[in-house]
Amino acid sequence: MEEEVNDLANARSTAQFDVEAMKIIWAGSQQSFNVSDRISRLVASDPAFRKDNRTMLSRKELFRNNLRKATHAWKRIIELRLSEEEASCLRFYMDEPAFVNLHWSMFVPAIKGQGTKEQQEKWLPLAYKMQIIGCYAQTELGHGSNVQGLETTATFDPTSDEFVINSPTLTSSKWWPGGLGKVSTHAIAYARLLIDGQDHGVHGFIVQIRSLDDHLPLPGITVGDVGMKFGNGAYNIVDNGVLQFDHVRIPRSQMLMRVSQVTREGKYLQSDVPRQLIYGTMVFVRQKIVYDASSALSRAVCIATRYSAVRRQFGSQDGGPETQVIDYKTQQSRLFPLLATAYAFRFVGEWLKWLYTDVTHRLQVNDFTTLSEAHACTAGLKSLTTSTTADAIEECRKLCGGHGYLCSSGLPELFAVYVPSCTYEGDNTVLLLQVARFLMKTVSQLGSVKQPFGTTAYLGRVVHLMQCHCDVQIVKNTTVRDARMPSDDQMTGTVSLRGVFGFLRAPNYSP
Amino acid sequence: MEEEVNDLANARSTAQFDVEAMKIIWAGSQQSFNVSDRISRLVASDPAFRKDNRTMLSRKELFRNNLRKATHAWKRIIELRLSEEEASCLRFYMDEPAFVNLHWSMFVPAIKGQGTKEQQEKWLPLAYKMQIIGCYAQTELGHGSNVQGLETTATFDPTSDEFVINSPTLTSSKWWPGGLGKVSTHAIAYARLLIDGQDHGVHGFIVQIRSLDDHLPLPGITVGDVGMKFGNGAYNIVDNGVLQFDHVRIPRSQMLMRVSQVTREGKYLQSDVPRQLIYGTMVFVRQKIVYDASSALSRAVCIATRYSAVRRQFGSQDGGPETQVIDYKTQQSRLFPLLATAYAFRFVGEWLKWLYTDVTHRLQVNDFTTLSEAHACTAGLKSLTTSTTADAIEECRKLCGGHGYLCSSGLPELFAVYVPSCTYEGDNTVLLLQVARFLMKTVSQLGSVKQPFGTTAYLGRVVHLMQCHCDVQIVKNTTVRDARMPSDDQMTGTVSLRGVFGFLRAPNYSP
Repeated sequence: MEEEVNDLANARSTAQFDVEAMKIIWAGSQQSFNVSDRISRLVASDPAFRKDNRTMLSRKELFRNNLRKATHAWKRIIELRLSEEEASCLRFYMDEPAFVNLHWSMFVPAIKGQGTKEQQEKWLPLAYKMQIIGCYAQTELGHGSNVQGLETTATFDPTSDEFVINSPTLTSSKWWPGGLGKVSTHAIAYARLLIDGQDHGVHGFIVQIRSLDDHLPLPGITVGDVGMKFGNGAYNIVDNGVLQFDHVRIPRSQMLMRVSQVTREGKYLQSDVPRQLIYGTMVFVRQKIVYDASSALSRAVCIATRYSAVRRQFGSQDGGPETQVIDYKTQQSRLFPLLATAYAFRFVGEWLKWLYTDVTHRLQVNDFTTLSEAHACTAGLKSLTTSTTADAIEECRKLCGGHGYLCSSGLPELFAVYVPSCTYEGDNTVLLLQVARFLMKTVSQLGSVKQPFGTTAYLGRVVHLMQCHCDVQIVKNTTVRDARMPSDDQMTGTVSLRGVFGFLRAPNYSP
Repeated sequence: MEEEVNDLANARSTAQFDVEAMKIIWAGSQQSFNVSDRISRLVASDPAFRKDNRTMLSRKELFRNNLRKATHAWKRIIELRLSEEEASCLRFYMDEPAFVNLHWSMFVPAIKGQGTKEQQEKWLPLAYKMQIIGCYAQTELGHGSNVQGLETTATFDPTSDEFVINSPTLTSSKWWPGGLGKVSTHAIAYARLLIDGQDHGVHGFIVQIRSLDDHLPLPGITVGDVGMKFGNGAYNIVDNGVLQFDHVRIPRSQMLMRVSQVTREGKYLQSDVPRQLIYGTMVFVRQKIVYDASSALSRAVCIATRYSAVRRQFGSQDGGPETQVIDYKTQQSRLFPLLATAYAFRFVGEWLKWLYTDVTHRLQVNDFTTLSEAHACTAGLKSLTTSTTADAIEECRKLCGGHGYLCSSGLPELFAVYVPSCTYEGDNTVLLLQVARFLMKTVSQLGSVKQPFGTTAYLGRVVHLMQCHCDVQIVKNTTVRDARMPSDDQMTGTVSLRGVFGFLRAPNYSP
């Protein structure tokens, strides 16, 4: 063990850059670093947030533990009067999915964004005090990407001034909402609005699903847990749920009416709130996913790099220590690009933060000119960064050899908890098709008045670019100087092969 | 549900090849098909082998369940007098790792291959009747690929005619053996043989670790479970273990002495058994891994293909059904190559079976000429097929969208149980380096009498090959005819975009 500590200390002492300065760059600013540093210590020093026992717990215990942790986090946030940034940072370091995440990141914002002033005044105080707990029930068993195909119906009944929420088919069952399976008392349920036989498309409705007295499902509500998911912890810690409505009645006032309204008489109206605002929200959510990709990737790379520094295998000379695996080029060529990628994703994440701020300012003055380019950037980068990160976590796991397969390495659960990000908030394949559409559209408009800008500005020089060619005419290979390779003898238990890996040692690396 | 059944039936009815004939081709022969078909029905119809509840069970329950299943399997194999092929097939369809697998696939073969006639006569009957249960304790916490670096020692004590087995360091702890954590009574432990201060390298020893009376660890033995691994079922079903020896004494007769012997006087001798036989065993194990890759991949592809046929999303015209996702080119371009790969791996697996048989016949008459080429083939193909299959299972999981994240899809556990094959029996990166070494050696010998043959025969034509060039001079791109792409509107809940995916429908596909 002492030797391992020395290997890490030795490796760290050779850093050729200012580590303290890099911490600030990574955090984005001195202020962000201070918050992150302080909150991480707060979480690490609080036994209520311990996570070392997480791989030992059954699903029931994990769930109970999560309720305790989430409640404790909420108490600490209040007691310490943490800012929104600090609270979000605390949840990040708590480091497990929690039903409250969806309450804060989807339920509350949906009411804020899609609710009228009256609706916000009624529901937000209840939500802020957690007197009600909300989930976001959009996806159904049969429809994910195609939101317009949702089958749940909300039929206006003018006689009682109510909507009747109904699940007409098995495939119309709400499926996936986090927090729905066991915890939530309310849901924002998305349903087709039907008035007098006419289908007005999908809208959001606030529906109470469990009693505030005994937490039992209300009449007409069938609700449960969707079962085990990837990994043994990961999203099994939360209660992703299934929900069916059997003609559940809610007051007309519980349709979210900021963008569209239904009057007492059953008239369907649309407000003049610009539709584009919804794109602004998507830009926000996806820029956050890109930023989070760098966080997830950096954790995986950090584990794999530390392991590579302390793990020694082959190459012992005269009974001395074996070679640190980080000194093998085969390890370096797989690990170091991922390390670089983590930084690249962090910097592009910072840039997307700026882009979102810029778009937001423009939207406030009804300037939509940059919106579609910003939307394409975040869609493409969401797809690129999440796919790359998911693959990279698995590569880091493999770089830790057999040990990466143990949950105690942290990597299996990091992978299991990360991979859904390739699917949620826009399936990565669908998003790339959208980027392609945007690029094709940009190209098709090149001759017109509308000039490309931002990340597509280079397309304005297309005539010049099309004339550029690579001057390379012949291929020159670098030759392999030393063809000695490790053999399988090391596995036969009969032949000593010490040193065969030695030639792979990077000449410029002196730990 | 009925609609889904129709979608599958319709898709199946369009097959343009003889499905029954393909089943035989896939199985390898009519006889193999018959065995596989019969045993699969036997397992499916026996409630003791049920696996539909597997994702619901805790680790303890999974483990107990596995003990029950493995015992039941053993009983059925005896009762029905199943052949070795049939028994292996039954374990394949039982479809979960079991401690008995290692007993049969490692412990028994090690005694058979490395034990003397006397040792085989003493230990094999006990093992066959499972009066003792064995594991294979090679890997240590500090050494995996580098078997020569193992630290466990076996010191010969001539005064008592015993070996003293000892774990001198933390890193010398045996780590990973399946069946060790809770079940095994005996282990083949690999340790450095020390006689009179001289180190004779790593050898195998039969060591009893638990009492046959009360199953408690014997004096000097510290043994336990290594903890949770990837996934919630997968290898958590078995008891991979950790083991430390504190000067444990065993009779001299428990060193496996077929290849090397230690005499009563403490003399170290080596027999004339050809070392190359050990390569023969590696060729066998790895050809089996290549064959198993096609099995694992075919299961993943089967799930993803069926899902793609029943899942419909976008493209509804005039209220009709939406498009089956298998009809999208984006889905096809990801799924179909994996389907083709599953077949390719099956065929190369069949070829490797032939190669192994051929090598075995040659070894029996001391003909080692083809051994290194066969060894390189299996090493390279083991690496290629397991890496490809691991990635492909994850791709199949993503092809099932959100549903692939649920354990009920079967894919998360298929991935978790498969990925260690990239690391065990030769880490894939190390194996590729070995193949490279073999190829470099082959090239360096081209001028000599030794002519390349088999898969490397083409290197004999290297002068001709070096003169071959590609005649292509210009690049011609196929043009995109329809630039309409799906937009993000489907996620805004305000705009209907039915049909935007329609153009992706493959024109030649008529389900």
